Amino acid sequence: MSLATSGLSLGVDVGGTKILAVACDPSGVEVASSQASSPQGTAPDGGVALADAVAEVVVDVADQLSVRPTDIPLGIGLPGMLTLDGILAFAPNLRNASGSDLGALLAARLRTTSVVVANDADCAAIAEQRLGAARGHGDVIMITLGTGIGGGILLGGELLRGGHGFAGEVGHMVVDIDGPACPCGSRGCWERFASGSAVGRLAREAAHAGRLSRLVDAAGGDAESIRGEDVTAAALAGDPEALALMDEVGWWLARGIANLACVLDPSCVVIGGGMSEVIPLLIAPAAAALPELLEGGARRPPVALVPAALGARAGALGASLLARRPS
Amino acid sequence: MSLATSGLSLGVDVGGTKILAVACDPSGVEVASSQASSPQGTAPDGGVALADAVAEVVVDVADQLSVRPTDIPLGIGLPGMLTLDGILAFAPNLRNASGSDLGALLAARLRTTSVVVANDADCAAIAEQRLGAARGHGDVIMITLGTGIGGGILLGGELLRGGHGFAGEVGHMVVDIDGPACPCGSRGCWERFASGSAVGRLAREAAHAGRLSRLVDAAGGDAESIRGEDVTAAALAGDPEALALMDEVGWWLARGIANLACVLDPSCVVIGGGMSEVIPLLIAPAAAALPELLEGGARRPPVALVPAALGARAGALGASLLARRPS
Repeated sequence: MSLATSGLSLGVDVGGTKILAVACDPSGVEVASSQASSPQGTAPDGGVALADAVAEVVVDVADQLSVRPTDIPLGIGLPGMLTLDGILAFAPNLRNASGSDLGALLAARLRTTSVVVANDADCAAIAEQRLGAARGHGDVIMITLGTGIGGGILLGGELLRGGHGFAGEVGHMVVDIDGPACPCGSRGCWERFASGSAVGRLAREAAHAGRLSRLVDAAGGDAESIRGEDVTAAALAGDPEALALMDEVGWWLARGIANLACVLDPSCVVIGGGMSEVIPLLIAPAAAALPELLEGGARRPPVALVPAALGARAGALGASLLARRPS
Repeated sequence: MSLATSGLSLGVDVGGTKILAVACDPSGVEVASSQASSPQGTAPDGGVALADAVAEVVVDVADQLSVRPTDIPLGIGLPGMLTLDGILAFAPNLRNASGSDLGALLAARLRTTSVVVANDADCAAIAEQRLGAARGHGDVIMITLGTGIGGGILLGGELLRGGHGFAGEVGHMVVDIDGPACPCGSRGCWERFASGSAVGRLAREAAHAGRLSRLVDAAGGDAESIRGEDVTAAALAGDPEALALMDEVGWWLARGIANLACVLDPSCVVIGGGMSEVIPLLIAPAAAALPELLEGGARRPPVALVPAALGARAGALGASLLARRPS
């Protein structure tokens, strides 16, 4: 069987902790997959350990399908800023591979010429627009909520790369100039207010101000030991104070989306990423707040604000879709 | 002479106070122009008064060239949010024409089918990229500083319109959630910190805090009566305290540009608009601040930050260039 002619392609989503490879048919139906741990060293090795690990899952999927890796168009989604030449310029969660050319390393290992690399949120955006929550929309912003906020932007159905490949780093828009310090060096970046880590931070602030009494009690009276997961679990269980905090995070989510809508005017914004369970609790208050936060909100069509449909496999699916196209 | 075959085109820039029409040859050289006052009524008239005034300057230019208006491809730049169908959805500085279809009104008056309408900052962006400060760059953000901040975005040389036509409203990104109220309804929009009106506001704040002593003296000791023009005149004359205030405004200019660069990753940002005299005083501190405000600033190529080259005629020139292309 020749995959090049069968129309299958293979996408790999590289995260800070795990690597997921998925082979799909042209309609996005998964036909094989493989998973491995990401190499955890922080000493730069030029991407060698990561390329070895990715090559292994690719070979595993090819073996499952009884084909050679050279027969499979291959796409790789990476958590970091990629140059237009595919160099991983900045990847705080993959420090060992920073500065490396994963596409070239994999092409050498797999003896293939067809490797496309892209940002992981960009891959998720492609997948949600072709197969998921943003079908039928051309101008789409994908927001991935996790430790930070990632972003992928599609305009007219095409990925926005920017002049150097770094477009879509939406989490580092500053929305509160006097806000908390961000690891990026600025203060008050959007991801300090509307990400997984923001839930914990805002909860500790609220606890110090006398709110979230049940969670403080459960934490032995120590507001500082409240974690984001405690808040989201309490909110999912219906705790009113935890739900009020999720409303607050949802408002901040809307604030950043309104900023992006001023600049990009999308027709659809998809919310996904690692916080999938609580996304419905954030989307409801965000959608309620958005019209009044948007310039000319009463005079423009509403922006569709929808939860991601493809879950944790969106990145790998999107990478496999990107592999089908000329890079 | 047939302009359709000669390659001339006509652009009109409609401002809140005046209307400028310019006819250009294919290389952007101006061959005729005409100017009029904008109709000043605020009562909505469906755009009739504005269309009459624009038709008049168009006919005047056509007469100067001894041709019929129907022989000239016509582009109109308007200060407001335009839908993809060319309806002026929201135009605070042209209230009487709000909701109107200027393209259709002009087509009826001039008996032509070839009228393109666009946002005025979008027109300026096109002109600066084709003929001015951003030549050679594909991914360009045009920032126009005036009472507020306007924006025009080019990606791969093409205008970003957005899902509904409203992209590029960059002045209403919120950068300081607790900042001053903005007429748009939000607080702390970028244009509250880095526009002509921002210079006046920040100067009055500084004066109340004991700074800008010469300006306070010149204003008879009343900090509240200091206007933005007083500060820019003093800065241009070398007053150190006024220059320090321009540095502050320049820093805010950089803060918003850094936000936009996270999202769009442009290779070139052009600063233009009505504040052209003081733009060099703002660009120097903005360029100095930008690298450290930008995520991964040390790891990415610098963003070129340049003053507009085409001055007050950029809008009309850009409208004439847009008129040449299929709408």
